[in-house]
Amino acid sequence: MFQNFDDLSDPSCGAPHAALLRAELSRRGLDGFLVPRADAHQGEYVPPHDCRLQWLTGFTGSAGMAAVLGDSAAIFVDGRYTIQVREQVDMDVFPAQHLINEPVTDWLAARLKPGQKLGIDAMLHTVRDVRRLKKVCEDAGAELVTLDDNPIDSVWQDRPAPPVGQVSLYAVELAGRSAREKIAEIQSTLADKKADACVLTQPDSIAWLFNIRGSDVSHTPLPLSFATVPADGKPSLYIDGRKLSNSVRDALAELTDLAEPDDFKQGLTTLGKAGSRVMIDPALAGVGIADAITGSGGTLMEAQDPVLLPKAIKNETELKGARAAHLRDAAAFVGFLYWFDQEAVKGDLDEIGAAEKLEEFRRATGDLKDISFDTISGAGPNGAICHYRVSRTSNRKIPVGKPFLIDSGAQYEDGTTDITRTLAVGEMTAEMKRHYTLVLKGHIAISTARFPGGTTGAQLDTLARIELWKAGLDFDHGTGHGVGAYLSVHEGPQRIAKTGTVPLKPGMILSNEPGYYPAGEYGIRLENLEIVTQARDIPGGERPMLGFETITLVPMDLRLVDVPLLTLDERNWLNGYHETVREEIGPLVGARERIWLEHATKAI
Amino acid sequence: MFQNFDDLSDPSCGAPHAALLRAELSRRGLDGFLVPRADAHQGEYVPPHDCRLQWLTGFTGSAGMAAVLGDSAAIFVDGRYTIQVREQVDMDVFPAQHLINEPVTDWLAARLKPGQKLGIDAMLHTVRDVRRLKKVCEDAGAELVTLDDNPIDSVWQDRPAPPVGQVSLYAVELAGRSAREKIAEIQSTLADKKADACVLTQPDSIAWLFNIRGSDVSHTPLPLSFATVPADGKPSLYIDGRKLSNSVRDALAELTDLAEPDDFKQGLTTLGKAGSRVMIDPALAGVGIADAITGSGGTLMEAQDPVLLPKAIKNETELKGARAAHLRDAAAFVGFLYWFDQEAVKGDLDEIGAAEKLEEFRRATGDLKDISFDTISGAGPNGAICHYRVSRTSNRKIPVGKPFLIDSGAQYEDGTTDITRTLAVGEMTAEMKRHYTLVLKGHIAISTARFPGGTTGAQLDTLARIELWKAGLDFDHGTGHGVGAYLSVHEGPQRIAKTGTVPLKPGMILSNEPGYYPAGEYGIRLENLEIVTQARDIPGGERPMLGFETITLVPMDLRLVDVPLLTLDERNWLNGYHETVREEIGPLVGARERIWLEHATKAI
Repeated sequence: MFQNFDDLSDPSCGAPHAALLRAELSRRGLDGFLVPRADAHQGEYVPPHDCRLQWLTGFTGSAGMAAVLGDSAAIFVDGRYTIQVREQVDMDVFPAQHLINEPVTDWLAARLKPGQKLGIDAMLHTVRDVRRLKKVCEDAGAELVTLDDNPIDSVWQDRPAPPVGQVSLYAVELAGRSAREKIAEIQSTLADKKADACVLTQPDSIAWLFNIRGSDVSHTPLPLSFATVPADGKPSLYIDGRKLSNSVRDALAELTDLAEPDDFKQGLTTLGKAGSRVMIDPALAGVGIADAITGSGGTLMEAQDPVLLPKAIKNETELKGARAAHLRDAAAFVGFLYWFDQEAVKGDLDEIGAAEKLEEFRRATGDLKDISFDTISGAGPNGAICHYRVSRTSNRKIPVGKPFLIDSGAQYEDGTTDITRTLAVGEMTAEMKRHYTLVLKGHIAISTARFPGGTTGAQLDTLARIELWKAGLDFDHGTGHGVGAYLSVHEGPQRIAKTGTVPLKPGMILSNEPGYYPAGEYGIRLENLEIVTQARDIPGGERPMLGFETITLVPMDLRLVDVPLLTLDERNWLNGYHETVREEIGPLVGARERIWLEHATKAI
Repeated sequence: MFQNFDDLSDPSCGAPHAALLRAELSRRGLDGFLVPRADAHQGEYVPPHDCRLQWLTGFTGSAGMAAVLGDSAAIFVDGRYTIQVREQVDMDVFPAQHLINEPVTDWLAARLKPGQKLGIDAMLHTVRDVRRLKKVCEDAGAELVTLDDNPIDSVWQDRPAPPVGQVSLYAVELAGRSAREKIAEIQSTLADKKADACVLTQPDSIAWLFNIRGSDVSHTPLPLSFATVPADGKPSLYIDGRKLSNSVRDALAELTDLAEPDDFKQGLTTLGKAGSRVMIDPALAGVGIADAITGSGGTLMEAQDPVLLPKAIKNETELKGARAAHLRDAAAFVGFLYWFDQEAVKGDLDEIGAAEKLEEFRRATGDLKDISFDTISGAGPNGAICHYRVSRTSNRKIPVGKPFLIDSGAQYEDGTTDITRTLAVGEMTAEMKRHYTLVLKGHIAISTARFPGGTTGAQLDTLARIELWKAGLDFDHGTGHGVGAYLSVHEGPQRIAKTGTVPLKPGMILSNEPGYYPAGEYGIRLENLEIVTQARDIPGGERPMLGFETITLVPMDLRLVDVPLLTLDERNWLNGYHETVREEIGPLVGARERIWLEHATKAI
């Protein structure tokens, strides 16, 4: 199993670990310290030795920050984690604050005293974040102290070792373009922008650029590493040599200068000493990187990681891979749905059982490299916790008479999948159907949207919500995120959300996943992945439009659809989608599953 | 008549005036000069003596900029004016560029040579714009020279005198709050933000704050003036004393220190010398203001004009006034529609005739202070020019068999109106009806929207466009703008547009005006004004939502509606709206108009 259901932590660690940290701070002459969830790569998955926020507080969510002062502390999490944080963290030691509405900067501003010293780990806070923190400290007459090492590491007993996951080459038959070609493109971007070099801190940028994949963290084939790319000459890749087989090392050595991560700072200093103008992404690069460059005489040029956009815009080979991966994944998922339909109504199935079975169906494809994230298997009230992770303790029987939410994905070598379905178990009430159908209407509105070039995800986000808003409802997460090509299941820069300021471009892959979560009752979410495409010419139209091609091909549960709530166009979309599912996936499943699929995709 | 139809200018001025300006630049040792449409108040209406862009190029649109170098020149206008600019400006002298897509900064970057001096009038370019210009000049090795006077004024023969429109007091019965109260609110904002004073450059901010109205420019009761408001003590109002009657002067003297506009710079210098921290709006204040403050020892605090938001959020008295003004205006408009229906089909009516008649109906209310902008009376192809102004030359017969677009508004003492209707003249084709109905669907989508607190106009804008986008169509203007209370018909900070980043709040008034403009054919636009309201509790809803209350009560032309294209909800909205129109406006019009109204608002 790629997924485990262990209880990762419990609130009891909060008090003793806060005491250990405070003692260490006092030894170092510091009055406070910030503990973000991030590692130096600002990624979603963090290897165990970098899970400092979890060590300190017990919190295992994918975003958050703790602040510790002498006499007070708090943990800051976003809307996804407001329930989870109360279960995992001792609220007496770390009262929970809303990361966005009650930001850490306000909290600090109200507490920092003149002359106090607030420490941060220079690699864990981005240049942009540090600007805000500096201002808060200055306004309070306090000092922000950036540290080259982390006080937690001094007091964390049994801290795990850093991962040394093996690196593999990603074949050009899957990548569509050679690493050499990609490096040349980035170098031409650097030349255009008059930068002498750029620093890459995102392992998925590095994986894409050098056509490699790694195995350092769960569920995402990332090679934790840093790189610098000069406008001319060979890039440098800072990666633990133990991760490289001889053949991989030889292949990489043709493209890059290989060095150990410990040499990274030295490499930055060398760039600085040469007076280079170095491009860093202020939203991704730790302030320690910026300081190393400017401290040695270099100048910074702040710009978005130049790999983000080329990586987000998939080429034809990557799109072909994504479509193949989604057909394979849909066939496995239909197998699961058929099985689930027999089992769930008996009333004995639990969340872990469902997640295990789904992984089994995916594994049976023979191509499963990993799941793309821990399956969110949410029965009843657990379904209302948007980013719920089932553990042995939280595990619930799937109740008959409530919708069941399952959000999952797979890593295949040709593509990354991510799908959510909400399934009827027994009789559904009119209210449940109404909620499901409102979410479905939002999903259809995104899927059928057409939009001119330059349109951002923020502009589309409202389409997914307006029917919920009209019903006095909403959901507290974005509508969609980018998805990588056998890389991160959450990838930027594009997203469909209030904060999605990047224009959508043909070739980008995005999730489309509106939801609704009546607290304490159940959760509803419907998620397909969509490729941004140039829409076919529209009769009577005068401007070219973009649109979406849906690549997730799994039925929506018709037993939860309140048909009269759908417009004719929405019914037509659903019937058309189900016809495609039937035609594409029918031939890929067994005879009994095919009969089930015929029924599940019948026209309404 | 408040509207005149004179031909304002013609392209022939371009060549001689460019030559005059170039000679003056050369006398002053300058290599180039920028001529924005703006005056020092960055408002939409500019008094004749400040219409330098028009003097230079002939262009009369409400936004734009000319750039003049020794051997090249250009005019920059936005999407609204791409047709108009070609009719008004000599394209050989001032080739037209797109203000947004081909910005003046790019144009300058490609042409400026090292050592050259580019002049600007320090009062006409905002702090924010000057930052961009400075960067362009620096990158080119050129110098940006800010001038205290304008070279055009030295060569402009027969330049009109500045206006001295009389100022009147705006009664608290209409304003809802006393000036004293409003000043105290702004002063408390300044104290909160730790500013010692703010500078107000927007005449409508000044009019709102001091409860005065003026008559310096067309169609908007603005008192052109500047003000400074200290966190403590009396504000200073810099206004031409000739505009003040004794009674107005006495009333204002109780609230403010009165001074002449020529003393404004001196007032800024006094603030600077006292070491004040002065709040200016970098998007509104001329760079000369910032320089006067910092040059005399003050520090700047950049923030949005603190009056904008309180002014945009109307109080109950202002809203009551707006509703009354809209009832009055709708009754006049229905009179016009009844008349138009008899006349237009005869085929003899022209654009000017329609605009004159509409003003006559409004004047007959006995309450018309002015029209709120020049009526856009667009027959056939002229309707496709979004911001068309009819003149004796451009005037067209209104063709039978094409939709006619009329966009107009009124200034009443209790409120400002703005309405657009598109009217059937004779038989309409299926295509015309389809276009009209697609625009109507967008209009209804905005009007029926519900949305949570914090939602911005940018988030709603897509709702007005999505049905057009699906048809391969779009319109090149925002969906809605703020509207003042007997003030500017275009008022910020809120708007429904891609650029609308301000959360909508109850009490704001916005236009809702999607359109579609097949070039060379006809124009369609449907505009109502809407008040942002707290929506009534929604059955089954769990979050409070905001919504809109439509205050424009005039029928949509049913002869242009393709009924089967509407969803049931959309039909219900239209029938409900028409029922309200019938009930509210029926009693306010004559017997024949009432019979016409019954027919025009029948359920479909």
